[in-house]
Amino acid sequence: MVEDQQIANTKPLSCIVKLGGAAVTCKNELEKINDENLEMVSIHLRQAMVLGKVVGMDWSKRHGQLNSSINDVDDNGDGPMDCRNFIVVHGAGSFGHFQASKSGVHKGGLDQSLVKAGFVATRISVTSLNLEIVRALAREGIPSIGISPFSCGWSTSERHIASVDVSAVIKAIDAGFIPVLHGDAVLDQSQGCTILSGDVIIRHLAEVLRPEYVVFLTDVFGVYDRPPSQPNAILLREIAVDEDGSWRVVEPNLQDMNRQVEMTVAAHDTTGGMKTKISEAAAIAKLGVDVYIVKAATDHSLKALTGEIRGGIPDDWLGTAIRFLRK
Amino acid sequence: MVEDQQIANTKPLSCIVKLGGAAVTCKNELEKINDENLEMVSIHLRQAMVLGKVVGMDWSKRHGQLNSSINDVDDNGDGPMDCRNFIVVHGAGSFGHFQASKSGVHKGGLDQSLVKAGFVATRISVTSLNLEIVRALAREGIPSIGISPFSCGWSTSERHIASVDVSAVIKAIDAGFIPVLHGDAVLDQSQGCTILSGDVIIRHLAEVLRPEYVVFLTDVFGVYDRPPSQPNAILLREIAVDEDGSWRVVEPNLQDMNRQVEMTVAAHDTTGGMKTKISEAAAIAKLGVDVYIVKAATDHSLKALTGEIRGGIPDDWLGTAIRFLRK
Repeated sequence: MVEDQQIANTKPLSCIVKLGGAAVTCKNELEKINDENLEMVSIHLRQAMVLGKVVGMDWSKRHGQLNSSINDVDDNGDGPMDCRNFIVVHGAGSFGHFQASKSGVHKGGLDQSLVKAGFVATRISVTSLNLEIVRALAREGIPSIGISPFSCGWSTSERHIASVDVSAVIKAIDAGFIPVLHGDAVLDQSQGCTILSGDVIIRHLAEVLRPEYVVFLTDVFGVYDRPPSQPNAILLREIAVDEDGSWRVVEPNLQDMNRQVEMTVAAHDTTGGMKTKISEAAAIAKLGVDVYIVKAATDHSLKALTGEIRGGIPDDWLGTAIRFLRK
Repeated sequence: MVEDQQIANTKPLSCIVKLGGAAVTCKNELEKINDENLEMVSIHLRQAMVLGKVVGMDWSKRHGQLNSSINDVDDNGDGPMDCRNFIVVHGAGSFGHFQASKSGVHKGGLDQSLVKAGFVATRISVTSLNLEIVRALAREGIPSIGISPFSCGWSTSERHIASVDVSAVIKAIDAGFIPVLHGDAVLDQSQGCTILSGDVIIRHLAEVLRPEYVVFLTDVFGVYDRPPSQPNAILLREIAVDEDGSWRVVEPNLQDMNRQVEMTVAAHDTTGGMKTKISEAAAIAKLGVDVYIVKAATDHSLKALTGEIRGGIPDDWLGTAIRFLRK
């Protein structure tokens, strides 16, 4: 049974953002952050959410040096700093996947020492990434607060969400912070443990908190009809979701082009690739929440994050909009 | 109102250990871990709690290199690995204090941008330390799981614990893990935010979970009658706690020596120094739970952690035992 908390007193949630693992890490190098992308994503998020003055919030040593932003603090003194309500959820990318797949954490079996060790190793890896992302956001002046699904009591049964406590997330938002969650190793009531993906977390948060829109930041321009590495892949600009959760491509008109959508799942991705992403996105859109899948660190993603494309999608915008089809 | 969870199904808890900030960090250097002490403490904890085989559990890069322990994993394969039930709580030492005191997080006022920034900066610093301690324990084969009090919904009112959820801690223990909590910046219902110290966390956990004993690892041999830096300071070997929570020194007999206990509070410590420590320890002892305050990384601390001094304290043991006086 999923225990959903009272959300009566919560301020409206503007947006849930997924920082895709592929967008903020170097997927082919173990535990390597894509610093350039992460910095640009952090700037975009600050532009989209922080209202009023900006104060650097990472006052910890970095590369052995004290962060320079600490010296700005006194000058800024007291005064208002406000944010639109956002939640950030990030994937694992090159953090966690290696540890999880080597030990089979997603298949459960905590009585085996390899799985138990892998559970610990996976959490160390994904919480390391969480800390680095929280710090990158804080350096830009976003009041980010790391919250691990495991720590706030999220668990699964037969790999589906069983118990969820969103109260820590809601309290953080109400206090003016930006919660930063992540795909995590969690306990599973039937098989002992599993991996809870960032995409599943987002769907659940969207169901409970009903954001105005959801943005998935990834490493390609959106969803394509076939692997985007293929030269003839076509970007799907708009997908409509039906009341029964089924979805179809509205633009471009693929039938006119005699094409069908192929789906691939990356072999290394223990939580499922594009197929999971679209079905999770469709489930969110079915709630009446617009979903945008865009390339991180581009003008297109900035437009999605600020919400300016909600009124109408410009012709030069590159990305995939997944929306509920009102009949 | 403090909401205490059902603990009916929980296995008995052997020990709650406090890793004092002064014991595992270099107090006079910002965000510097005392690696030598932390490694020895981790070895002692492993000796005190891990039963059966030992598998390295930190499979993440360290100093840019992949940890060597990852290569041991396959050789160990499957098989039992069991632990006595421990909870680790650590202080902040040279992590967090600077950020908290610069911004006045303990005094509250989240509407001020300096306090809000300081709250974020403090959490970044203390969660960085938490991650490093979890990793040090995991490298030794302890299945450690970082759990932040903020994330699992701990909050205060007028700086006293108001809302506590120990279910994540209990679930982690029941699944065979060692929860690692820490002093944290938390929300406060009356003043917006404050600092929740590791000592207060331990007292609350002891009340709810009733461990067999509690060990405080610190940077001196125990509690002295005056600052231990003074040459004539005397180690208080045994303190007896009365039913009303008051305490007195049993051994040595200070009255015979014409001395009284002086208490000092270190100026940098936003959560109170030795005075807080003794009153928190006395409150725990009043529950019938023995408390040992010992110097980290010594044979004396190992004897406290294994529980072997519970039967009787050897003459050559250096430390302070704080126990309930049964009349």
